[in-house]
Amino acid sequence: MDYARFFSEAIDQLHAERRYRVFADLERIAGAFPRAICRADGKAREITVWCSNDYLGMGQHPDVIAAMHEAASRMGSGAGGTRNISGTNHPLVELEAELADLHGKDAALVFTSGFVSNEASISTIARLLPDCLVLSDELNHASMIEGVRRSGAEKKIFRHNDLAHLESLLAATGRERAKLIVFESVYSMDGDIAPIAEIADLAEKYNAMTYIDEVHAVGMYGARGGGITERDGLAHRMDVIEGTLAKAFGVIGGYIAGSAAIIDAVRSYAPGFIFTTALPPAIANAATASIRHLKNSTAERAAHQRQAQRTKDVLNTAGLPVMPSETHIVPLLVADPELCKMASDRLLEKHGIYIQPINYPTVPRGTERLRITPSPFHSDDLIDALKGALMETWEALGIPFQETGQAPAARSDRVIPLVVSKAGG
Amino acid sequence: MDYARFFSEAIDQLHAERRYRVFADLERIAGAFPRAICRADGKAREITVWCSNDYLGMGQHPDVIAAMHEAASRMGSGAGGTRNISGTNHPLVELEAELADLHGKDAALVFTSGFVSNEASISTIARLLPDCLVLSDELNHASMIEGVRRSGAEKKIFRHNDLAHLESLLAATGRERAKLIVFESVYSMDGDIAPIAEIADLAEKYNAMTYIDEVHAVGMYGARGGGITERDGLAHRMDVIEGTLAKAFGVIGGYIAGSAAIIDAVRSYAPGFIFTTALPPAIANAATASIRHLKNSTAERAAHQRQAQRTKDVLNTAGLPVMPSETHIVPLLVADPELCKMASDRLLEKHGIYIQPINYPTVPRGTERLRITPSPFHSDDLIDALKGALMETWEALGIPFQETGQAPAARSDRVIPLVVSKAGG
Repeated sequence: MDYARFFSEAIDQLHAERRYRVFADLERIAGAFPRAICRADGKAREITVWCSNDYLGMGQHPDVIAAMHEAASRMGSGAGGTRNISGTNHPLVELEAELADLHGKDAALVFTSGFVSNEASISTIARLLPDCLVLSDELNHASMIEGVRRSGAEKKIFRHNDLAHLESLLAATGRERAKLIVFESVYSMDGDIAPIAEIADLAEKYNAMTYIDEVHAVGMYGARGGGITERDGLAHRMDVIEGTLAKAFGVIGGYIAGSAAIIDAVRSYAPGFIFTTALPPAIANAATASIRHLKNSTAERAAHQRQAQRTKDVLNTAGLPVMPSETHIVPLLVADPELCKMASDRLLEKHGIYIQPINYPTVPRGTERLRITPSPFHSDDLIDALKGALMETWEALGIPFQETGQAPAARSDRVIPLVVSKAGG
Repeated sequence: MDYARFFSEAIDQLHAERRYRVFADLERIAGAFPRAICRADGKAREITVWCSNDYLGMGQHPDVIAAMHEAASRMGSGAGGTRNISGTNHPLVELEAELADLHGKDAALVFTSGFVSNEASISTIARLLPDCLVLSDELNHASMIEGVRRSGAEKKIFRHNDLAHLESLLAATGRERAKLIVFESVYSMDGDIAPIAEIADLAEKYNAMTYIDEVHAVGMYGARGGGITERDGLAHRMDVIEGTLAKAFGVIGGYIAGSAAIIDAVRSYAPGFIFTTALPPAIANAATASIRHLKNSTAERAAHQRQAQRTKDVLNTAGLPVMPSETHIVPLLVADPELCKMASDRLLEKHGIYIQPINYPTVPRGTERLRITPSPFHSDDLIDALKGALMETWEALGIPFQETGQAPAARSDRVIPLVVSKAGG
């Protein structure tokens, strides 16, 4: 075995398949969201970011930054230990209480990331429950897939948001066997929403537990930012609500909220929780400030929805192929990986607009897209500039426009493979 | 299946086995290391922390806190995306360059935690290599065990630091088959050190890759804080060096350093790296400041070693059962889980000294201990106060002393099970 050669060839293969990723080196400018300095080839220039998951710009909110400063000054930069060995800092205890309240649950548990929260929680719950069957939506995020896989439990994948398919799987299993339904509220690449109430009905009918990932919804939906489950009055029907502190809340970390017993079980049995250093007090304090702000202020949510809708309307009117989306996410169909990459490169180089191309395996082949995430800070002028840049790019590269007002063609007949390693990377 | 009852019983079982963990709610006081405010039963009091992994107190270094402030003010509280989708911030790029330089490697890759860095890197390397055999030290950390498990590769566990056993496993496999030896430099619960040079010799002889975890050594050993591999001039003989930003560097996050091709392969293929939000710029900036400081200053390392040695000497002289340790870690044998917990409780309540008990499964049964981690800020007076508190506790609870100058008895004949889920939680 020639190790050096082997790894070089593994990289060559990615180049050959045009799947090699180059990361954009960014320096976001606090107070000037969505502007950032982008470095490439030894040059630095200012650009506009149109693909951030800091959906509400809360990462630059003065209260959030002040909370980070305050805790760092008072308690230092790190936690200094695992949760069990000297790392449980008071801001983290307060953050967990804040999250439990946000979702109307007994308790919450914070992890170092949303990825770890899904992986550790799903794997632990499904492993603890004897002979558990996991029912998993086919478009679930990679972190949920890893959690299911690691649990060692049997799994059945149901077609995306397909209630009839889910019910047939539940009915075939019967009421007695332990069952865990894992799904998302907002699917981040298409922007569609799960039929949560109907899934809760099925869970009740067949005695299954429910685990919902709200990472693309918390902070942004519901009167206090509790997500789609709050907006639709369904939080009490979900056994576990998982969320992130790294998107709308603008910081880093993930969490689950649920009954005292479930949270305590995950806290006590999950290696990915137990054997890792706790989040720093400054991070926890910043997250708490962000959550508290969004519990009390609806201005960000209103502006977010308004500018997202405006972006869709302006691009649609211009004949750009906006894929149907029920949420703040605006996917623009390119349907070709080379063109998608070229469009992204051209937007950055010629127009100073940064939108990362989303190719396979993050989305199915043939549905390659630019995924645009407007924020409250993407002004009408920025939206108009985006439209102009996209039209120039579409024309220059010969990417098909849609007929005005029509949904793009590839959407309705796209084929989604049952398992793709996907979403968000 | 009655889910609520099931989870309640899972918790009851932990109580029955005396394994239920209650986290100490701490607020460390920046500038007064190792002092902290501890909250319990609605009361807050000041205590001395003797079990932090912020080994050098760098989490409270003014340069580190200032770097955190500066980046948060300039770039906000979060990264706003995954590494690939708008989350690669410039301080993170600088941090990776700093880490590559620290270990004399081509490149480095930063993860959200040390746990994730081990799990993602080991699993990805061992999964990519065709028909890889993993050779893993029996006392490896839980994160390494998870990485090996998730790789799906065949594994063989060698007895702790046992070169003959490792060689026999290598010899039985032959030169051609891909092999990855995974081990730690400093084992955190005993404070002993692996025979790194000899393992490198075996790796060369049998054509195996080497992966070393230096989380309990980086920052603390070597002329620039590059760990035991720097101290002993062995970094160039290790294929991958894994480290943490959360212990001696005082922040949060983990990393690997290695050849450009290996780092690029892990970067490109590891789901736990790809599908997770990047570390915030403020965290990366603080970590870089800490690493740079420790590259240039040896005062912290010298004081650390001095105070650790003094702690051992003072406790040994008092007849307290200090377990042999080659490093800064000072384990004190109790050898009984109930007594260990009672000693910890008494130290906190009566003496204001916080040392978390370390029980099974973190360490083997019969070797339950108090794990003491002196820092440069644990003064001679604090060490004397610790000795007094420990002696009072040992006498009050009837825990055996050792004969002066003798190593504690349980050490030499302890039995270590081949697999325990362990270390650091």
